[in-house]
Amino acid sequence: MLSRAARQAQFALPVRNVASIATREPSGPSMKTKVPGPASLEIKKKMDPLHQTTSVRLFADFEKSFGNYMVDADGNTLLDVYTQISSLPLGYNHPDLVKAAANPHFITSLVSRPALGSFPRNDFPDGISKALTSVAPKGLKAVQTMLCGTSANENAIKTAFIWYMTNRRGGNPPDQKALETAMVQNQPGTPRLSVLGFHGAFHGRSLCMLSVTRSKAIHKVDIPAFDWPIAKFPRYKYPLADNKQYNDAQDKECLKDVREKIAEWKKKEHDVAAIIVEPIQAEGGDNYGSPAFFKELQKIAADNGIVFIVDEVQTGGGGTGDMWAHSHWNLETPPDIVTFSKKLITGGYFYREHLRVKEGYRIYNTWMGDPSKLFLLEKVIEVIKRDNLIEKTKKVGEMFQKELAKLQANHSSIVSQARGRGTFAAMDFPNASVRDQFVEKAISLGLHCGGCGEKSLRFRPSLVYDKPHVEITFDLLDKALKQL
Amino acid sequence: MLSRAARQAQFALPVRNVASIATREPSGPSMKTKVPGPASLEIKKKMDPLHQTTSVRLFADFEKSFGNYMVDADGNTLLDVYTQISSLPLGYNHPDLVKAAANPHFITSLVSRPALGSFPRNDFPDGISKALTSVAPKGLKAVQTMLCGTSANENAIKTAFIWYMTNRRGGNPPDQKALETAMVQNQPGTPRLSVLGFHGAFHGRSLCMLSVTRSKAIHKVDIPAFDWPIAKFPRYKYPLADNKQYNDAQDKECLKDVREKIAEWKKKEHDVAAIIVEPIQAEGGDNYGSPAFFKELQKIAADNGIVFIVDEVQTGGGGTGDMWAHSHWNLETPPDIVTFSKKLITGGYFYREHLRVKEGYRIYNTWMGDPSKLFLLEKVIEVIKRDNLIEKTKKVGEMFQKELAKLQANHSSIVSQARGRGTFAAMDFPNASVRDQFVEKAISLGLHCGGCGEKSLRFRPSLVYDKPHVEITFDLLDKALKQL
Repeated sequence: MLSRAARQAQFALPVRNVASIATREPSGPSMKTKVPGPASLEIKKKMDPLHQTTSVRLFADFEKSFGNYMVDADGNTLLDVYTQISSLPLGYNHPDLVKAAANPHFITSLVSRPALGSFPRNDFPDGISKALTSVAPKGLKAVQTMLCGTSANENAIKTAFIWYMTNRRGGNPPDQKALETAMVQNQPGTPRLSVLGFHGAFHGRSLCMLSVTRSKAIHKVDIPAFDWPIAKFPRYKYPLADNKQYNDAQDKECLKDVREKIAEWKKKEHDVAAIIVEPIQAEGGDNYGSPAFFKELQKIAADNGIVFIVDEVQTGGGGTGDMWAHSHWNLETPPDIVTFSKKLITGGYFYREHLRVKEGYRIYNTWMGDPSKLFLLEKVIEVIKRDNLIEKTKKVGEMFQKELAKLQANHSSIVSQARGRGTFAAMDFPNASVRDQFVEKAISLGLHCGGCGEKSLRFRPSLVYDKPHVEITFDLLDKALKQL
Repeated sequence: MLSRAARQAQFALPVRNVASIATREPSGPSMKTKVPGPASLEIKKKMDPLHQTTSVRLFADFEKSFGNYMVDADGNTLLDVYTQISSLPLGYNHPDLVKAAANPHFITSLVSRPALGSFPRNDFPDGISKALTSVAPKGLKAVQTMLCGTSANENAIKTAFIWYMTNRRGGNPPDQKALETAMVQNQPGTPRLSVLGFHGAFHGRSLCMLSVTRSKAIHKVDIPAFDWPIAKFPRYKYPLADNKQYNDAQDKECLKDVREKIAEWKKKEHDVAAIIVEPIQAEGGDNYGSPAFFKELQKIAADNGIVFIVDEVQTGGGGTGDMWAHSHWNLETPPDIVTFSKKLITGGYFYREHLRVKEGYRIYNTWMGDPSKLFLLEKVIEVIKRDNLIEKTKKVGEMFQKELAKLQANHSSIVSQARGRGTFAAMDFPNASVRDQFVEKAISLGLHCGGCGEKSLRFRPSLVYDKPHVEITFDLLDKALKQL
């Protein structure tokens, strides 16, 4: 029942005016004010009565930003190696994505959003196939889209619980008793099951995910949690080659703790149904596990009938020089579930076929993802393949790691534990206060970076980060360290 | 580091080809095949190895769909009174939204997504103001965006817990002991607190939200839950005017149960920190509470220092003839928190000023919403105001309710409990099986509708649903009932 005027308006669509969107990457950072500058502070003042601003550092101009450079509201141009907390695969305003925004498929996916679990778009399977199946971790095929990393992890864990209980019932669906007791939250319908997480882990901020998250107290304090086991995670010394004995002992100690925790919870009749672990604890301080550690962890899970979930929300998408950080573990069988989000634009998880939930409406919600994000990811994957960006990131990463080692050698009184894979990297400062001062200093010089863990600095450039950007990065890091 | 070719490609943006997007609303439904038809079944077969399809009913053609009509992959044109589970405010491909997709603000918000909590777009406060503040529930101003209804509810509850514990500390932030104990999930840092929900409620499917959700066993079975109290929710008899005594007694009994549950959990040292309730239990069977019930519920919450959360995820956005379903309760003070999603395009919640979390990074995650959704909502609100769609829905709703009563009178052996506000309505069938058969029948005749609760049919048309659509709807309902 649209008016004729409204219908005509559509036919009179303007030729898209994209003149205001940047089309060239700046040659380097340029700073006009402190950060945050007066314009950012003014906007913050305006926003504060309407929406919390406690963690806002600056306001960004997303039309002027391009490639590896973020331009803020004050016109400061910053080389961005933090990329919206590691979630821009191709930097800002990538021309192929801007162009893709003209596609009618894309427009219709935006303006009328489907309830994907029941009435998906007819092009949804194509999108899944091109955007996700084509980059699935080795040995995995089936995927479930979700909106973000937290909902990916929540639903991965639900899938694990459902599989665990189905096994207990000898492969049968829930019986009448299970359904009835679930409604009053008693056993067996509402089971006593747990998930094992790790110290230093970050898996999201819902109440369930906070129960397996142990990166920072401020995330967890005042929030009730499930009584679930948390095991030790390795804390290696770097360089790895010089600390083999110490690091191997770390692996052993942590695996022993995992085995003990599983047994302890079993004894309490609070079985561990899933283990969830990041390849690199990317929020908790860039803590790595060795391939040997993860291989044994997978074996422990398999031996105990526990679902092995690898959380690649921050590590997935190519920054480590592989699409999936777990791929260099060379597992003989794939992880049971691999979750993703951030650089993958859409949240979701890949899973092994035996975990497929047979009954409808169990892994379900209104949106279950977003076709417009899948469509964008399809373009991102096209560009990654066409421009060979993962292989390129591996090479740029080699240069990055060499420069990082050099930087540490030149500033060994302040910088330690240089580590990384690809351009996914970190280094440590003596304490949080020095790290935080350093971040401020680097930003003031035009390098946008961020901390992680107690005293680490993390590097999370996009996949269009190239060798000239590495040079600028280390020039600014060196300057900032000297000015500290 | 973009090639010249890539840069040129951007300047050569094609004039947008939207010829494939429908621009006219069909004059009525037209059916070509059964639903799902052969094309839908073929796509389903293709999708099944890649992504679960257990709950998929049909595949929709989102380019051909328009206004109140969804066209499926087989070319069937269905009048849609279910609207992607109540989440299309302006139906399909609204010309104003299609046009808005050309805006450079919108394009940049899509192709490079900010971490909103730290580096928001410089136009974010404007968007908040136009899209959300301008339609805030009476007495509320501050808002927090999130991605979906579940994350809105999760964070509303976290806000309640944080406020409750801050009160316990006499208004102070967490001390060292709280921070330390939170990391090992012991008291006081990880408190024993609970949330009171209601039988028949639906608040989402994360583990926390499932702990206060009691609509269907299949949502809950096999998933561990928090031990939180669930109270009785009124089950009225209709028409309300003829059943005053019975319905008043329902209110009393349920309020008594709420008081008892709060006391019981207090005694267990497991204090209720929040009550979460829907104005209409819209997933659990369209169960209503009276203004008197909600007023007293709010009073109980206030008397006990409990945060009163109204979940308007399905009821918000105008379908009831008000932007917010709770507005006709005429509360003297607003609810403490009102959550939303679905028709509001973005998830989020409004909250009273005393609940504002003072410390940064406590209500936080990577994306915290999506500026592209906020931008769309801004246009939706513009259209709602310009076309006076809420007032119009109120009038169309009056016609709808009259027709619904007439339909029930004409089919009183099958249909009962006709109820609703605006075009947000429901009716009951003798049991689930008859209801499900009816839904199939209605769809086969060209009316796309959906069930809720045990044996109810729900109506959730969009705000562009007008009187001629009401006529078609009731013509088809009548036919379907006769053919049952």
